[in-house]
Amino acid sequence: MKFKIVAALLATAFAMPASADVLIDNVTGITMDEEGQVKRFEALVIDDDGRIAQILSRGQERPRTDYREEGEGRVMIPGMIDAHAHVMGLGFGALTLDLSDTNSLEEALQKIRVFAAENEARPWILGRGWNQEKWGLGRFPTAAELDSAVSDRPVYLQRVDGHAGWANTLALQAAGITDSTKAPSGGRIEKLSDGKTPSGIFVDAAEELMNAAIPAPRPNERDLAFVEAQKVLHRHGITAVADMGTTIEDWQAYRRAGDKGSLTLRIMSYAAGIDEATLIAGANPSPWLYNDKLRLNGVKLYLDGALGSRGAWLKAPYADDPGNTGLPLMAPAQLRNILVRSAQGGFQPAVHAIGDAANAEALNAITEIADSFPQDLRWRIEHAQIVDPTDLQKFAQDGIIASMQPVHQTSDMFMAEARMGENRLQGAYAWNTILGLGGRLVFGSDAPVESPDPFAGLAVAITRSNAAGEPFGGWRPTERVTREQALAGFTSEAAYAGFAEGRFGRLLPGERADFVLINTDPLLAAPEEIRSTKVLETWVGGRKVYDAD
Amino acid sequence: MKFKIVAALLATAFAMPASADVLIDNVTGITMDEEGQVKRFEALVIDDDGRIAQILSRGQERPRTDYREEGEGRVMIPGMIDAHAHVMGLGFGALTLDLSDTNSLEEALQKIRVFAAENEARPWILGRGWNQEKWGLGRFPTAAELDSAVSDRPVYLQRVDGHAGWANTLALQAAGITDSTKAPSGGRIEKLSDGKTPSGIFVDAAEELMNAAIPAPRPNERDLAFVEAQKVLHRHGITAVADMGTTIEDWQAYRRAGDKGSLTLRIMSYAAGIDEATLIAGANPSPWLYNDKLRLNGVKLYLDGALGSRGAWLKAPYADDPGNTGLPLMAPAQLRNILVRSAQGGFQPAVHAIGDAANAEALNAITEIADSFPQDLRWRIEHAQIVDPTDLQKFAQDGIIASMQPVHQTSDMFMAEARMGENRLQGAYAWNTILGLGGRLVFGSDAPVESPDPFAGLAVAITRSNAAGEPFGGWRPTERVTREQALAGFTSEAAYAGFAEGRFGRLLPGERADFVLINTDPLLAAPEEIRSTKVLETWVGGRKVYDAD
Repeated sequence: MKFKIVAALLATAFAMPASADVLIDNVTGITMDEEGQVKRFEALVIDDDGRIAQILSRGQERPRTDYREEGEGRVMIPGMIDAHAHVMGLGFGALTLDLSDTNSLEEALQKIRVFAAENEARPWILGRGWNQEKWGLGRFPTAAELDSAVSDRPVYLQRVDGHAGWANTLALQAAGITDSTKAPSGGRIEKLSDGKTPSGIFVDAAEELMNAAIPAPRPNERDLAFVEAQKVLHRHGITAVADMGTTIEDWQAYRRAGDKGSLTLRIMSYAAGIDEATLIAGANPSPWLYNDKLRLNGVKLYLDGALGSRGAWLKAPYADDPGNTGLPLMAPAQLRNILVRSAQGGFQPAVHAIGDAANAEALNAITEIADSFPQDLRWRIEHAQIVDPTDLQKFAQDGIIASMQPVHQTSDMFMAEARMGENRLQGAYAWNTILGLGGRLVFGSDAPVESPDPFAGLAVAITRSNAAGEPFGGWRPTERVTREQALAGFTSEAAYAGFAEGRFGRLLPGERADFVLINTDPLLAAPEEIRSTKVLETWVGGRKVYDAD
Repeated sequence: MKFKIVAALLATAFAMPASADVLIDNVTGITMDEEGQVKRFEALVIDDDGRIAQILSRGQERPRTDYREEGEGRVMIPGMIDAHAHVMGLGFGALTLDLSDTNSLEEALQKIRVFAAENEARPWILGRGWNQEKWGLGRFPTAAELDSAVSDRPVYLQRVDGHAGWANTLALQAAGITDSTKAPSGGRIEKLSDGKTPSGIFVDAAEELMNAAIPAPRPNERDLAFVEAQKVLHRHGITAVADMGTTIEDWQAYRRAGDKGSLTLRIMSYAAGIDEATLIAGANPSPWLYNDKLRLNGVKLYLDGALGSRGAWLKAPYADDPGNTGLPLMAPAQLRNILVRSAQGGFQPAVHAIGDAANAEALNAITEIADSFPQDLRWRIEHAQIVDPTDLQKFAQDGIIASMQPVHQTSDMFMAEARMGENRLQGAYAWNTILGLGGRLVFGSDAPVESPDPFAGLAVAITRSNAAGEPFGGWRPTERVTREQALAGFTSEAAYAGFAEGRFGRLLPGERADFVLINTDPLLAAPEEIRSTKVLETWVGGRKVYDAD
């Protein structure tokens, strides 16, 4: 028996159900175009599967569509893309105690006390966001101080940068920490002044000792956290994110949302290591799933820690801690081995490097290896905060993407001066120099380390000043970028850095209709207006996912 | 700004692209109907998304369709469903050395020698399927014997039932096995006659010592193995399978196939433990994915081992090994704990129980717990080979599904007599008694332990005789089932056991058009004809996935 079956019957491709097209008219539309230039438009047409059909200028004839909507002159920009965030961390952060707004140890302890009382059912009190520098404490806090707030349950609180944690006595006991516990390589257990009693502070790899003791979240808690993360991001006008350090559990939560049809965020995922990448995606990166909502792009690697906890790996000792150059988290051979394994599978490497030694090592390792891999891998260095000026031209040289977070500059500037000394900051947060040398620069928030608000990022990118307008005129202001460069860093360039160009990131025909309606023109408004931009609506794939009303 | 968007635009559901409908006329169609009775038909209409639109009897008017195909009187039955198989095991088995056709140790050693020579690039030689009983060896083989075939690389070969493994000396060294290595609880390291030197044989939980030393397959090897498994199953007329013991790696391979559009098998998945289930699916079973091709239904648990390796847990000692009652693999509290955790999440428990003690324990534990869970959980016992006759009525009592493998009966019958003695076989492979008591019975193959061929299973189910027709008249022939019961066990009942009723398993309007065209009428042909049924074509979702031409 032979059957003549038309090819379409055999096709396994999926299509959105037939639906209506929509004209949104009278907007102040802004996008980057194919040449990377700003293009303004006045109307946008969404086709029946959520892609942009047309953008139209003033005076151009409007097509007939099923629906026409009036934009009333509001500003429409591409959905903002956060090129470096921790989606599940943001979600869990939203569900746990947030200390990032505390200005003193006493204020923090009071907030912890109240949170514990309000959450009696939780067996552990978890939180994050403390910063002893912001508190003006001049030292780390201690377990005993934390016990004064909560002594009936274990408490463990991560520092604002995630590179240190603070435990109370019951948490130390739960983790089996004693005077004789040794810190793993790449980590440090802080001691009290007697030099042997653990103080309650765990730095970098030593945090694992505590993390291992914390009960793992259950899947429904993960799902809740993800719902929360999506909400927070959309509220800030973010439609896509590069998720740094995706675990298999994270990935499964994203897929559950995709399978249920509740995935509204676009996630470009970087697995928490090469083994995690192959477990998640197989031998190669995953395809784009759920209509360009999810893809495993590559692998996140940690080459050093952070400046705040003096874990960033420096070429010379810390100015405020002579003899300490921070910690490399991988040996040279190990870094190269993982980069090669990633590249062989086509996984895009994204290397966390904060100190100048870490950046030099990452740039050199990539330069050594890149020639052997002719395919388009788009090597990324994440943070690239402190770079030796002589190394800066290496970004452009090998097409290495600098993935940086504007707000880190204003949060860190005084601390960076203390850690590095004035003379070693020529290559610090060197956005304009990297661009000027021909490098590619993309912007993100590092949420939940900072707020995911991209408009704060835009404002800092063009001013190098914080919310208080300090320092007046900007910190090392020659490293400011233009408004157009800043917007591109949060849209079209961030899409390119995640292999998403042509899919989203610009408001051009054929791309997904991801956009934000806001009350400010980021190319014209004063920086303080940009910083206080109100997101009115957020749309993903032609569908409204957030409405301020 | 307000938008009026039609609901359809907001819908996230997917639909197959519009396609053609097909009439397949002049077939000898057989299916179970809604009442579980056989229904015959002469023509079937497939709608444009691969579901059955109509089945038509002789003389009924045929609808107009885009395509009409001539069945030439061939037999059409529902796609066969294997209610118990190991999909990836089958795939890897197809890629590794298969010793299941060897009839002596010497023949096996020669086959191993040849395979190693043909596969010089493989760092380990892996295989399965040996059976010292079939070889007439009367004892397990040894590492030294295996060394005589391959001594340049580690070799590790699983026994036919997967409950024991055979290593050569290099494999023992790679796993760090010495005279002083202790077997983990639930396992045994066989010793040479000196009582201390490991013989090379690892039983049940002790196999883990070897498995840990074998390099894990790479993702592309997994993908290859899965392609192979799909091919083998479709060739045998199987369109759906209950996958017993799915790991996260297995699941990811299935999803990769689904994401690529190359998943043609329907997989009802039972995770390899409760933690694996929540990692795979979250707090609850997954939705049906890829148009009813994949769902995580529940959890596979092992309560004992197998008869062949005397790992099955018996109420009284083995007749051929006095003092040994086999091994329970879980303590009573542990079994109940896992069953409760599964049920709380809505995960369907599928408990491997082979010996009469294991079956009693599984039945009792389920009976104790089932009342607390009013939802439809469809508790399953896998294998249910040796059941104390007094326990048999418990299947019906609590709606517990007996998931059994007809061919095991003929493979095991003489061995079972040796292990149990004649007097303890009243409840052995007691298909008809379970049905007669009102229990639900579904059939599978346990592939790769046995061939996945469901027509061999059908033939055994109605005869209790093996391919040689032995024993004449059938082994304990009162336990034969009718042809209709056997067909239901491999189709509609197997679908019910996997929560798939109404989706597939019958050729009724609204169900997926999964069917097989064969050269035999299984309700009329002689058993030997049924056994040698030729699968002409296999269709899944209205798409041909295998054609014998």
